[in-house]
Amino acid sequence: MDTTSRGAEGRPTIGDLGEFGLIAQVAREPRSDRVQVGPGDDCAYVRVPTGSVLVSTDLLVEGRHFRRDWAEAYDVGRRAAAANLSDVMAMGGVATALTVGFAAPADLEVQWAEDLTRGIVDEAALVGAEVVGGDVTAADAVTIAITVLGESAQSPVLRSGARPGDVVAFTGRIGWAGAGLHVLARGFRSPRVLVDAFRRPEPPYEAGPVAAAHGATAMIDVSDGLLADLGHVAEASGVAIALDAAAFEVAPPIADVAAATNVDALSFLLTGGDDHTLAATFPASTGVPDGWTVVGTVVEGEGVTVDGAPWEGAGGHEHYR
Amino acid sequence: MDTTSRGAEGRPTIGDLGEFGLIAQVAREPRSDRVQVGPGDDCAYVRVPTGSVLVSTDLLVEGRHFRRDWAEAYDVGRRAAAANLSDVMAMGGVATALTVGFAAPADLEVQWAEDLTRGIVDEAALVGAEVVGGDVTAADAVTIAITVLGESAQSPVLRSGARPGDVVAFTGRIGWAGAGLHVLARGFRSPRVLVDAFRRPEPPYEAGPVAAAHGATAMIDVSDGLLADLGHVAEASGVAIALDAAAFEVAPPIADVAAATNVDALSFLLTGGDDHTLAATFPASTGVPDGWTVVGTVVEGEGVTVDGAPWEGAGGHEHYR
Repeated sequence: MDTTSRGAEGRPTIGDLGEFGLIAQVAREPRSDRVQVGPGDDCAYVRVPTGSVLVSTDLLVEGRHFRRDWAEAYDVGRRAAAANLSDVMAMGGVATALTVGFAAPADLEVQWAEDLTRGIVDEAALVGAEVVGGDVTAADAVTIAITVLGESAQSPVLRSGARPGDVVAFTGRIGWAGAGLHVLARGFRSPRVLVDAFRRPEPPYEAGPVAAAHGATAMIDVSDGLLADLGHVAEASGVAIALDAAAFEVAPPIADVAAATNVDALSFLLTGGDDHTLAATFPASTGVPDGWTVVGTVVEGEGVTVDGAPWEGAGGHEHYR
Repeated sequence: MDTTSRGAEGRPTIGDLGEFGLIAQVAREPRSDRVQVGPGDDCAYVRVPTGSVLVSTDLLVEGRHFRRDWAEAYDVGRRAAAANLSDVMAMGGVATALTVGFAAPADLEVQWAEDLTRGIVDEAALVGAEVVGGDVTAADAVTIAITVLGESAQSPVLRSGARPGDVVAFTGRIGWAGAGLHVLARGFRSPRVLVDAFRRPEPPYEAGPVAAAHGATAMIDVSDGLLADLGHVAEASGVAIALDAAAFEVAPPIADVAAATNVDALSFLLTGGDDHTLAATFPASTGVPDGWTVVGTVVEGEGVTVDGAPWEGAGGHEHYR
């Protein structure tokens, strides 16, 4: 591969910089006492005072999870980090450290990779987490592999703990990112508030530990769509989930897009992915924390229903569909 | 994407199986008490009794790090895991848990992914480590992102601790994988012992903690080639490393390949990558553990020399070259 390749206007490319150059960019970030060894060695070394660590990995592939013409590199980084950090949130924990694997064509401009990295670092900083290591290699498509470590003050809240009689609730924006993607896929850039919700989701990071402390019996982050993700909870818990369509409030921008594109507005809320917000079940006796909306109940059986029947609209997305 | 796509002879593909199917394959593996939550939830949850965790991430991309026509899926998995586990070894630690991100075309046969996974699981089992989670998504090229967690009984051995007067040594096979790759790249499949060394490296996992306990001042796993990796040690430590060519013993199969392809045999030992063995520096007073070969000394200055001069042969590989 030609290491002297140059981007537009002769700007330096990833091929010029090489693996250690990009890692050095990340390594310049300030580090807390928690990070005993940061980027640049064979491994990072991170303190785990609670004695147990949460760990989760996500892959984002160009053309599947993001498009360079739909979002700035910085926002791709914010979103990639949010997708991982929200997995820790969904266990009731707080993320502490991330590693970033980055594969890209050698002619990708360094600026793009730096902006991406900055986005990851800034999103992580929202919860006090740091980038502690990574790997950089060449590939035809930009691929981002993020692994997040985290800690939990109590036992993690699993997907498998929902029990008949529990209430089902969510917090944060739901359907916004899916409606934004719907708009982008049709070649539009507005409503801006929805496009921005897709480009830069805002997971309610504090709500995870609060829900865990409140007694949530099961919890998941809504990444594939509410129906699909509650389906995972129902399956893992061996229960059914009955949703009440009237409990959902459709925000005006989603209602506008639904009307303009002749789509049932509720389908955005039920099947839109990428919001990285939280859905959980709570005992009916304890109720839900402030800021959560009850939308259904846990019952005996299997699967997820809306007003007593399977949802007949478009389904939640799966990456192989 | 067509979820009904089929591989040769109608065998099921990754597209048929979907993300949760493949994760379920991994989740069937037995788990130790260390793994409190395994695959299938938002995060895994792993005990860290020492209070600090080593973490490292590697990306392997089809066509750059492996070719499906050069190695069976099982061996690709063994090698991918070895590359990560050896990073923990090079800190003086022992790996405990791995996450696996897997991106592949939807028409990839399930059997290939299962064999890959089995290879990762088996290599990890050599050190008692387990696959605790992962992610699966679609991509044009097969991409494997492995993150490894590990623990160390003492402070990790960094790249930055080499001091003038220390001896430089390595243990394990060196140059074998590089010579195997050299053979494969020329369309040959023998000497089989070298090709196998490339397909399935054998990191000396026990040697890392032993070297740490013996007082190693700096350590690295030889993945890019001895000169390149010792160059990282020299740079991180602010020293120079002087190697003695006569200290290297060329194994017969490497000598044969060198003669047959008109290459300096020593270049395989100095610049061949992918052996995932160990190089380290030790105080001259303590010497080296059993099984290590002293090949040079740490001196004032910068860079790596062979018999007093920079190496003029082919260089260690960098992924963007």
